[in-house]
Amino acid sequence: MRRARALSEFDIIRRFFTREARSAVLGAGDDAALVRVSPGSELVVSTDMLVSGRHFFAGADPELLGYKAMAVNLSDMAAMGARPRWALLALAAPRADETWLRRFSRGFMRIARAHRVDLIGGDTNRGPLNICVQILGEVARGQALRRDGARAGDDIWVSGTLGDAALALAHLKKRIALNARERAFCLARLNRPSPRVELGLKLRGMAHSAIDISDGLLADLGHVLERSRVAADIQFESLPRSRALAGHITQKIARACLVAGGDDYELCFTASPGRRRAVLRLGTRLSLPLTRIGRIRLGKGLALFDAQGGKLRINGRGFDHFA
Amino acid sequence: MRRARALSEFDIIRRFFTREARSAVLGAGDDAALVRVSPGSELVVSTDMLVSGRHFFAGADPELLGYKAMAVNLSDMAAMGARPRWALLALAAPRADETWLRRFSRGFMRIARAHRVDLIGGDTNRGPLNICVQILGEVARGQALRRDGARAGDDIWVSGTLGDAALALAHLKKRIALNARERAFCLARLNRPSPRVELGLKLRGMAHSAIDISDGLLADLGHVLERSRVAADIQFESLPRSRALAGHITQKIARACLVAGGDDYELCFTASPGRRRAVLRLGTRLSLPLTRIGRIRLGKGLALFDAQGGKLRINGRGFDHFA
Repeated sequence: MRRARALSEFDIIRRFFTREARSAVLGAGDDAALVRVSPGSELVVSTDMLVSGRHFFAGADPELLGYKAMAVNLSDMAAMGARPRWALLALAAPRADETWLRRFSRGFMRIARAHRVDLIGGDTNRGPLNICVQILGEVARGQALRRDGARAGDDIWVSGTLGDAALALAHLKKRIALNARERAFCLARLNRPSPRVELGLKLRGMAHSAIDISDGLLADLGHVLERSRVAADIQFESLPRSRALAGHITQKIARACLVAGGDDYELCFTASPGRRRAVLRLGTRLSLPLTRIGRIRLGKGLALFDAQGGKLRINGRGFDHFA
Repeated sequence: MRRARALSEFDIIRRFFTREARSAVLGAGDDAALVRVSPGSELVVSTDMLVSGRHFFAGADPELLGYKAMAVNLSDMAAMGARPRWALLALAAPRADETWLRRFSRGFMRIARAHRVDLIGGDTNRGPLNICVQILGEVARGQALRRDGARAGDDIWVSGTLGDAALALAHLKKRIALNARERAFCLARLNRPSPRVELGLKLRGMAHSAIDISDGLLADLGHVLERSRVAADIQFESLPRSRALAGHITQKIARACLVAGGDDYELCFTASPGRRRAVLRLGTRLSLPLTRIGRIRLGKGLALFDAQGGKLRINGRGFDHFA
């Protein structure tokens, strides 16, 4: 671990980010951290980098930023059906601003703790704001939910509702006008996404494939289809929508948010039709709506149908000629 | 893994950075990578972020940058006595410049392959140049070389020579004038450090503690002393120096480079005096000079002595009143 050199207030970092890592053999403070992966488990590892101006606005609330940096990584674990265990945080910041760091750390550590993830190391530097989190999780051998496991005949499911985060962004960019209640709801969806870790864990042995929706349903389901070498038929009317989004569904931008909006961090998964009741029971148990939106078939590509069975033309990452 | 969105030329990235990861259960292309840690091994994990203007000059040779980004992470594994296995690369770049990416990838992949490290995932984004590498390695349970294992009576050793990389920087900053041969040698030490992975592996069961010298001998050995709650006496005359550095030793800046220059990525380790012959034999076997520079003792702090046994006053990260 190289640090201290760049951020002169190393002690601040140590103070804000160092917690006893009970789950590690050796946590922060050495050249590397040491952990023991549970016997019979595979290690699941992922990294997500958040860049100012790309993933968040300059001047964003540091607590929300800390929360989201951890949340998007947890979502990767959820999409693999993995139990998140440990994280490392590499952070570049223009200066060691104590208030900013305290608030960032609060958001980051709070959601980490909620998911029993230990921060076991990292690196801090001075530079343009950049947040790079690495997450490590565990999954029983061969049980991971992968993108390449979808099979013809599978139902396609999504958790929660789609497009809310994108709708918040559209509002911020003044492309749509949300009322106060809609705005509050959608902004919470954008800023404080709920990684579906419990759902991912429970889907092991039930789902054939899974992905988290970070780039929009069409793009992310597209990755599953590509990796699994199958096609999908999706029913537009079945796509789960919040009351906020439903209230604007006659506007093209709301429909685009629904099918192609990113940042929702819901899970999209496929499972055999024989599992329908089990999936629905699971949704009830988790108090999380799980909605069947279409079906995997042999072939290539993704088709989107309207309520009358008419095929909608997908156009780039949205679609047009909505009936 | 979230990407594609920011760098529009995602295919370029995929082309330059995707190699078959034979050692992984599942490599790049899913929400996370899957690996199996060898039975009886602990997982060793570290991250290093390289920021433009901090760790390298803007406009730095991308091939050297790729090399160094991997090398400094390998050095963390070396310092733990770990076998490096897998890496992830999170990269932010102002634009998807094909030539730059190809050269960066060449430097990165070449040293990764040389150490049989598989790149198993990552994240790419548009933004100010930032290179964040995560490295994962393995070490037999309880065998890791830690900072907290130094014992009173231990010899203190360093590999290779010290201060060369800092001397190159001093030359670039026109604080010292190196001749052509010295410059070439020192620049190679700065730009293409050799992570001492084999040494680290062989030191298991032999060294009591180890650290890599990234911030300078005084600072890094200081971390070992602090974590091990011991003190050290160092003989200035015994510090191993290259011919290039020795040629300038009458200059204060060269002496400061020797004791406090960073970026050499040599190992500093401690071992019982009973191991002296074994350590020297190991150095011969690896064709890597291993030099005894002092001794661990009870107490606190680090004392530096001249050839006459006079104590030199350490001043910040260098020292003054050199006799």
